[in-house]
Amino acid sequence: MNVGILGAGSWAIALASLIGSRGHAVSLWEYNRDEAEMIRQKREHPVKLPGVFLDPSIEITSRVEDLFEPVPDIIIIAVPTQFVRAALAAVWKGVPRETLEMVGGWLIVSKGIENSSNALLTDVLKDTIPVCTDDTIAVLSGPSHAEEVGRGVPTTVVAASQNEGFAETIQEYFSTRFFRIYTNTDIVGVELAGSVKNVIALAAGICDGLSFGDNTKGALLTRGMVEMARLGQALGASEHTFSGLAGFGDLITTCFSQHSRNRRMGELLASGKSLAQALEEMTMVAEGVTTVTSLHELSKKHGVDMPITEKIYEVLYSGVSPEQAVMDLMCRTHKPERY
Amino acid sequence: MNVGILGAGSWAIALASLIGSRGHAVSLWEYNRDEAEMIRQKREHPVKLPGVFLDPSIEITSRVEDLFEPVPDIIIIAVPTQFVRAALAAVWKGVPRETLEMVGGWLIVSKGIENSSNALLTDVLKDTIPVCTDDTIAVLSGPSHAEEVGRGVPTTVVAASQNEGFAETIQEYFSTRFFRIYTNTDIVGVELAGSVKNVIALAAGICDGLSFGDNTKGALLTRGMVEMARLGQALGASEHTFSGLAGFGDLITTCFSQHSRNRRMGELLASGKSLAQALEEMTMVAEGVTTVTSLHELSKKHGVDMPITEKIYEVLYSGVSPEQAVMDLMCRTHKPERY
Repeated sequence: MNVGILGAGSWAIALASLIGSRGHAVSLWEYNRDEAEMIRQKREHPVKLPGVFLDPSIEITSRVEDLFEPVPDIIIIAVPTQFVRAALAAVWKGVPRETLEMVGGWLIVSKGIENSSNALLTDVLKDTIPVCTDDTIAVLSGPSHAEEVGRGVPTTVVAASQNEGFAETIQEYFSTRFFRIYTNTDIVGVELAGSVKNVIALAAGICDGLSFGDNTKGALLTRGMVEMARLGQALGASEHTFSGLAGFGDLITTCFSQHSRNRRMGELLASGKSLAQALEEMTMVAEGVTTVTSLHELSKKHGVDMPITEKIYEVLYSGVSPEQAVMDLMCRTHKPERY
Repeated sequence: MNVGILGAGSWAIALASLIGSRGHAVSLWEYNRDEAEMIRQKREHPVKLPGVFLDPSIEITSRVEDLFEPVPDIIIIAVPTQFVRAALAAVWKGVPRETLEMVGGWLIVSKGIENSSNALLTDVLKDTIPVCTDDTIAVLSGPSHAEEVGRGVPTTVVAASQNEGFAETIQEYFSTRFFRIYTNTDIVGVELAGSVKNVIALAAGICDGLSFGDNTKGALLTRGMVEMARLGQALGASEHTFSGLAGFGDLITTCFSQHSRNRRMGELLASGKSLAQALEEMTMVAEGVTTVTSLHELSKKHGVDMPITEKIYEVLYSGVSPEQAVMDLMCRTHKPERY
């Protein structure tokens, strides 16, 4: 199978290495020419994913057209969320329509919501590459930190597509002994869960930074999942998806992992740093910081109560202190545990 | 309000301190006379919950009858699960039936299943104190490590009773600024979740001990919640309870906390220790070790598939290695993510 990957960040590299190990022909696209050259030479990204090496058979290019010669069976979209539209626009501009029509399928592995449009990435994809249809789109999500996949830690994910056959193709061709893929047809739920969890992870990082302990985090994640499912149902997703690997599973991994950039960002905020200072310290993107503004708007638009998202929005953009935000969440009126 | 607490372990002491801080009159019963005397003198348990001090107004006794003079509004049951029947038998033997009939309500805070009968503790209570009815019984559960409640970490729990009014009484009288209580009517679900999570925590500890990382734990907990809910539904519980604080919330706290005895036990097993050696090293009870045998039997009896529980049973009692157990769970046949 020929696989082209848009992006050369930590997740792109971990997947390239994994998929290459199954014997597929893999090409990686990195838009920055110097960076592409560096990866090509070193066969690793010493900052983003040190220690994971790419087989010499894996091609690294900064010309997006190269991913389409020969026509790939699957294109994987692994660029940071806010750059997905630009990357896909480059594809649409650089690659003949007939070639794009021959691509077997498109797999989105980035997580988040496009800030400018509040759109899920499947919609961004259909917008920018009009030959894409629901039948040729899938998303991959679940508890899967690149650092751990890179070193062969047992990992389980979900491939979701309205086209069950395409999800099964991904399951069949990309599974390994330590990388287990379940299939699911609720693509909206899987995408949304992967976005909202980054915001809850900011809150979890704040709890960690304030030394609030595991009881607080247990409560926070539970109530976080409730509001995630609530928005999901408003957008047509299945409630069950949020109890699955893309919801519950990814949420806990992200909220507890030392590798999580969003959790780390929350810790920095709790230590008294401003958003600008915290962003300065991060070498990689913390998607939750932008996702929260879209969720803020979506929750208003759909009339969905999302108290944790709202508090994180206030911490980031309205000057509420992290301590105050946690206490506000704890001190809401007493009530039954509704879902 | 007069509150009597059966037990003087870490959770009993944390609750005594919390409830005392609300101005209620609290008495603690510890069956061992020397231990009771030690706590009475030191006003703390230096091994089980160091640093949490009991107000001089809190009485500590080794005569169970003392808890019933004056007649308490609420009796809290906080002894280790396998000793609940014996403790309640002592109550039934030592306290006049008329007094027991005047007790306002009974609140179970122990978690687990009685090994000899595979019964939930509400059933053990009704068995041993026949004047108890569903209307006077509640359980308290959720992500609430005693060590953290003891030091005032923001914590959220569920009080569940078929009698919503009784659950609301507990909510009203025991809540504090940092101890938030939700109510719920699904007492079977709340009890069962609090039991099964200890077995999943053994598996989580094994993952930690084998250095399997957060991806593996995310997957394990997600699939653990699925099998917990599956058994719950067979026993008449609501699926939703398992996504709530007593299910999801407590599960993640238990599986990640350094305070969790069950998680720690799993780590010891993963390090190559036998069950006997691991038990030797633990100063406190790891309920999951006995709970798993009951779950093993209940899952058979009700025809419910519980793969993680089954593997933990095999590790503890059939000589399967921890490594083998994790790999067996990862390498099951490919399938859709069903719930």
